[in-house]
Amino acid sequence: MKSRRAKGKPEAPAALIFDGDRLRVLDQRLLPKKIAYLECTTTRRAAAAIRKMAVRGAPAIGLCGAYGMALAARRNAHRSSHVLLERLRSAASELSAARPTAADLARAVDRVLHSAESADESSIVESVIGEAEKIRKETDAACRAIAKSASDLLAGARRILTYCNTGSLATGVSTGTALGAIEYRARAGGSLEVWVPETRPYYQGSRLTAFELICLDIPFSIVTDATCGYLLATGQVDAVIVGADRIAANGDTANKIGTYAIAALAQRHGVPFYVAAPSSSFDLSAASGADIPIEVRGGEEVIEAAWKTKAARPGLPKAYYPAFDVTPNDLIAAIVCEFGVLRPPFEKSIRRAIGD
Amino acid sequence: MKSRRAKGKPEAPAALIFDGDRLRVLDQRLLPKKIAYLECTTTRRAAAAIRKMAVRGAPAIGLCGAYGMALAARRNAHRSSHVLLERLRSAASELSAARPTAADLARAVDRVLHSAESADESSIVESVIGEAEKIRKETDAACRAIAKSASDLLAGARRILTYCNTGSLATGVSTGTALGAIEYRARAGGSLEVWVPETRPYYQGSRLTAFELICLDIPFSIVTDATCGYLLATGQVDAVIVGADRIAANGDTANKIGTYAIAALAQRHGVPFYVAAPSSSFDLSAASGADIPIEVRGGEEVIEAAWKTKAARPGLPKAYYPAFDVTPNDLIAAIVCEFGVLRPPFEKSIRRAIGD
Repeated sequence: MKSRRAKGKPEAPAALIFDGDRLRVLDQRLLPKKIAYLECTTTRRAAAAIRKMAVRGAPAIGLCGAYGMALAARRNAHRSSHVLLERLRSAASELSAARPTAADLARAVDRVLHSAESADESSIVESVIGEAEKIRKETDAACRAIAKSASDLLAGARRILTYCNTGSLATGVSTGTALGAIEYRARAGGSLEVWVPETRPYYQGSRLTAFELICLDIPFSIVTDATCGYLLATGQVDAVIVGADRIAANGDTANKIGTYAIAALAQRHGVPFYVAAPSSSFDLSAASGADIPIEVRGGEEVIEAAWKTKAARPGLPKAYYPAFDVTPNDLIAAIVCEFGVLRPPFEKSIRRAIGD
Repeated sequence: MKSRRAKGKPEAPAALIFDGDRLRVLDQRLLPKKIAYLECTTTRRAAAAIRKMAVRGAPAIGLCGAYGMALAARRNAHRSSHVLLERLRSAASELSAARPTAADLARAVDRVLHSAESADESSIVESVIGEAEKIRKETDAACRAIAKSASDLLAGARRILTYCNTGSLATGVSTGTALGAIEYRARAGGSLEVWVPETRPYYQGSRLTAFELICLDIPFSIVTDATCGYLLATGQVDAVIVGADRIAANGDTANKIGTYAIAALAQRHGVPFYVAAPSSSFDLSAASGADIPIEVRGGEEVIEAAWKTKAARPGLPKAYYPAFDVTPNDLIAAIVCEFGVLRPPFEKSIRRAIGD
């Protein structure tokens, strides 16, 4: 494990580095204090990096899963095709189970497994590694397309509020989604000022987005999550742009808890609210947000900060920690995916975009 | 400094204990981990307890200032009345300067000083101590009246959301304001469930309100501040009640940053939003919230959690930390002070209540 202190304006570290034999996973739990990589040469280690949340963000987790499959192929390359496929199936189970609710992870892992199963016996390893690389390229192209389209939407905005982390740390590729749009907007010139709510309890905002913005040399200010309403009410925000964990067929969008409040307050104050996410976030099996289950995580993650304890123990207060909320489609001005800018009514524009 | 560990269901510790010669100030910075008192026999120590925020909450700070004056009187009781008054004037300056923006502090200290200046030469010390005690009794009566009236408003509510800390830790007397209403409601019977947003960055909610609710044996759950919108949107809140730092002549209410967002979301979802505060919070010199200056505190208080550093240093990101926001009067269903329940239009009801 190589490590160096983050200091001054650091170079942007890649979330995932795969060299064919070895996967290096940036340990995002240590940011911004420390830039350190977990060295993974086995599927087990790649799965552990996902499970322990060293890597997070749907596209980055998916890519990490695909590379985890590549590691399994490489390590079992000398075995018979029968055994090799068995090992790949077992690797796929192990990787998918590392974050059972991450749809992108299972999808990427299954896709790589399918490519192995469809390949000639002699080219299974090449096929697996090729498919993982293809997923990386597609993810990168999708994120760049999203960032480009969404940055056009932000053309008139100087003060932009984003939430959680949607940068290249979350995608594992060269740019992000919502944060990618901010990056492209800044590159296109004009002075930006980004509002970064800290995003309790994990501080994806004040740790990860802040770190990425420093690397990108884009001015920003961290605020507490409870400050968003004040910023909007006092006219200090020109546009809001966030990512998405899942988008229902009608455009209702599940994202990090707190997103809904920002969207409702943005509407109250006439500030446009945009969602930027890859088309893999669309879930047409959910007719509306009511069909999206909300993951409730352990309360100890919330109370740790004030009660200075990581473990649940008698006498500790209860905490309620729904990890996501749903923003209804009528609060969303546009959803940007790699196929372009979708406008209301989203029932139609989403189906049209993904050719359903 | 006596100290013991908070463990299990603790007895409610008093924020301030004055025995005539000595003032004991509960160090609220250490809660909920530790119950420890700062022993103050001098004005200097009482001022330090205020300055370092061992005691916070407008009424408690005011009372601490009054007791700080009593300490000065006691220690200089043997001096000539001329010197004694000089010492009291100097104590008043020192105490008021400890939190220059706290209106209640200057008001309480000035009131005690005035009683000394108006007293017979032979009864200055008794007059000072008597006035401090009178302030305590009045504060206690006001808080009990507020808690009683506001608890009637909550009669139909089972799931109540409050914010920041407005309990006896904030008032220094036997009950609180908004949290006092919850206490009285619980005592009147019926099962309550209180939502306690943590209140970043100081965690007045998850540290202090949670601790008080444990002592009061009232069920509650801590949530992150960003969860309030979700709770309201999913119909899990019957009423919201908060305190106030300052209330303008038209009812616009300045309170802890984040209050406005809760009020706006409560209105969106048809949940009543109440303010409970002593009449000393009314500031008729402010016609509306626009006339209330918003204190902006140091950003390092916000970034400390994610960047693991207390000191500002080069390379650290900027943070913007307005400590209060303003809730416009049209979001407020009622304001409760010691004179009763005030209803809109607040311009009239406030002036009628305080006899202006």
